[in-house]
Amino acid sequence: MSKVAVLGAGSWGTALSIVLADNGHDVRLWTHSKEQAETINSTHKNEKYLEIMIPEKIKAYYDLEAALDDVTDVVLVVPTKAIREVCGQLNNLITKPIRIIHASKGIEPGTLKRVTQLIDEEMDNYNYEDVVVLSGPSHAEEVAMRQPTTVTVASINEDYAKSAQELFFNESFRVYTSNDVIGIELGGALKNIIALGAGISDGLGYGDNAKAALITRGLAEITRLGTSLGANPLSFLGLPGVGDLIVTCTSVHSRNWRAGNLLGKGKNLDEVLDQMGMVVEGVRTAKAAYQFATAENVEMPITSGIYSILFNNQKPKEVVEQLMNRDKREEMDDLATLLRNRYTR
Amino acid sequence: MSKVAVLGAGSWGTALSIVLADNGHDVRLWTHSKEQAETINSTHKNEKYLEIMIPEKIKAYYDLEAALDDVTDVVLVVPTKAIREVCGQLNNLITKPIRIIHASKGIEPGTLKRVTQLIDEEMDNYNYEDVVVLSGPSHAEEVAMRQPTTVTVASINEDYAKSAQELFFNESFRVYTSNDVIGIELGGALKNIIALGAGISDGLGYGDNAKAALITRGLAEITRLGTSLGANPLSFLGLPGVGDLIVTCTSVHSRNWRAGNLLGKGKNLDEVLDQMGMVVEGVRTAKAAYQFATAENVEMPITSGIYSILFNNQKPKEVVEQLMNRDKREEMDDLATLLRNRYTR
Repeated sequence: MSKVAVLGAGSWGTALSIVLADNGHDVRLWTHSKEQAETINSTHKNEKYLEIMIPEKIKAYYDLEAALDDVTDVVLVVPTKAIREVCGQLNNLITKPIRIIHASKGIEPGTLKRVTQLIDEEMDNYNYEDVVVLSGPSHAEEVAMRQPTTVTVASINEDYAKSAQELFFNESFRVYTSNDVIGIELGGALKNIIALGAGISDGLGYGDNAKAALITRGLAEITRLGTSLGANPLSFLGLPGVGDLIVTCTSVHSRNWRAGNLLGKGKNLDEVLDQMGMVVEGVRTAKAAYQFATAENVEMPITSGIYSILFNNQKPKEVVEQLMNRDKREEMDDLATLLRNRYTR
Repeated sequence: MSKVAVLGAGSWGTALSIVLADNGHDVRLWTHSKEQAETINSTHKNEKYLEIMIPEKIKAYYDLEAALDDVTDVVLVVPTKAIREVCGQLNNLITKPIRIIHASKGIEPGTLKRVTQLIDEEMDNYNYEDVVVLSGPSHAEEVAMRQPTTVTVASINEDYAKSAQELFFNESFRVYTSNDVIGIELGGALKNIIALGAGISDGLGYGDNAKAALITRGLAEITRLGTSLGANPLSFLGLPGVGDLIVTCTSVHSRNWRAGNLLGKGKNLDEVLDQMGMVVEGVRTAKAAYQFATAENVEMPITSGIYSILFNNQKPKEVVEQLMNRDKREEMDDLATLLRNRYTR
């Protein structure tokens, strides 16, 4: 059994702690809030995030150094915007080799940098190749209730990916491995653009046909973008790609879907952000993706349309008309080219 | 403008007739029922199947020979089980070259034969290469209401595929082309197995994580089966593949999902078929796919599990446990092999 520090006590960090505790590991759940740590330790609940009881063997910490004492693995589940700060602290505290497994789905706005790159930049003596990313279609509440869930762990370091698989695998949490860190990270982030689009479509009153078209053609374009950023196109067809995309686009609990839904009903971006009262990851991701795609000449008609709705006040209905009336074409030409390039170069 | 005979006046045939009429074509909608034809012509409604008014320029026929007089295209939308019989009649009536576009999603139980193969077998002077198949995520009701919909038309004859695209394309019905007839036909048929599985998962009370896992891993295995039957694996990632799979697995209107849901709730196959009172395509498809996969050594763990539930009375919960506890593995190994074989041979 291993000693593992889980950094970040939101719903996803708590759910992953439960998986690790079920597997017999010694789990330290770190939060920067002293009050939250004390509540977890005294009540074995983390009510703000999850309704379920937490196994007593999970100990909460607010002192990062104490949480890290003697651990072999660190599971990093803080919000993307806190990654640089927490890694800066880790950099000063880690004195011997550990594995870092991160489970944050996001990219840095503006730079399109992935979490693995942020870790690499902030930590002096840690190899990019050794980071493991964990991602897949996984509502935290269902994981905490031990409902069947599948995820993928990816690392360039194959041994580390397999160790992470061992660490988490159990009868209700099935873990696959991959070596495509870039694809697995980008799938989880870029899907939020398409979730916005799915919300817009539903907000306009369109049906299943329109949403399926949007998800399928959206998948094709985030695959194109991801491939031009170095991902294996195949990764977008797996659990952290199409699997996560389906969950996010068909769940009314998705924040991005909800924001899109309001846009489709006629609100503008400012009104939507006011009403949501929180960060909508897909908005920032759409902007970064649009800028990159424009600069690099990657065809992303759906993302461009969403960008126009968000930042140029274009009417959603007008965007749909443009998308439906683009040139007639063959369905799979682009993806076929991507794959041919990959396998014949 | 063309003269087109649409054979089959169910909801899908009627919806496709509306698309063609909107595009200015002269549309004859054939049904074997004299009463239905007369009702459509006098009321411009086909109430048993669709609630919407039908454009007056669509004329219904019950005399097949009259419907076929002078047409350039035949759109075949009869149920799969009626294909052989209707094609036998066509064989005697068609005297000059026409295009056949079929839009039936199904395979012949037992033989796994696709509709194109059935047409080829029943018609003496018609080339297999010239058949066009139309498929994609498309509830007929939404098409009839002119809501945005996307489909794919595939033919080995590229000119015929492009003609079919021209025939149907309009501002709410976007049509892509493909040359992979086998893949487009199999996607529409094999998805029904996975829809059964999605219903079983929901019937067991599992959540979004389990369903996304089932859809994603199910997609991987129907891609494997399809490829071993001659399809291009890429087709399963397009509209008639993943797009149609999403619609079918997330819609409570899907007959296959409903049958699966009852199985998940503990009914056995006989009880389910009694209660449904109609053919459940996925049950027959699962049987045929299981038998083929076993004989040809194609790995289809989800299909095997569904087969055991259907025909060996295995408890759904037990099947889920087996699926979750299979050997640990890499996620994309099989699909990567399929694609590598395709592009490097």
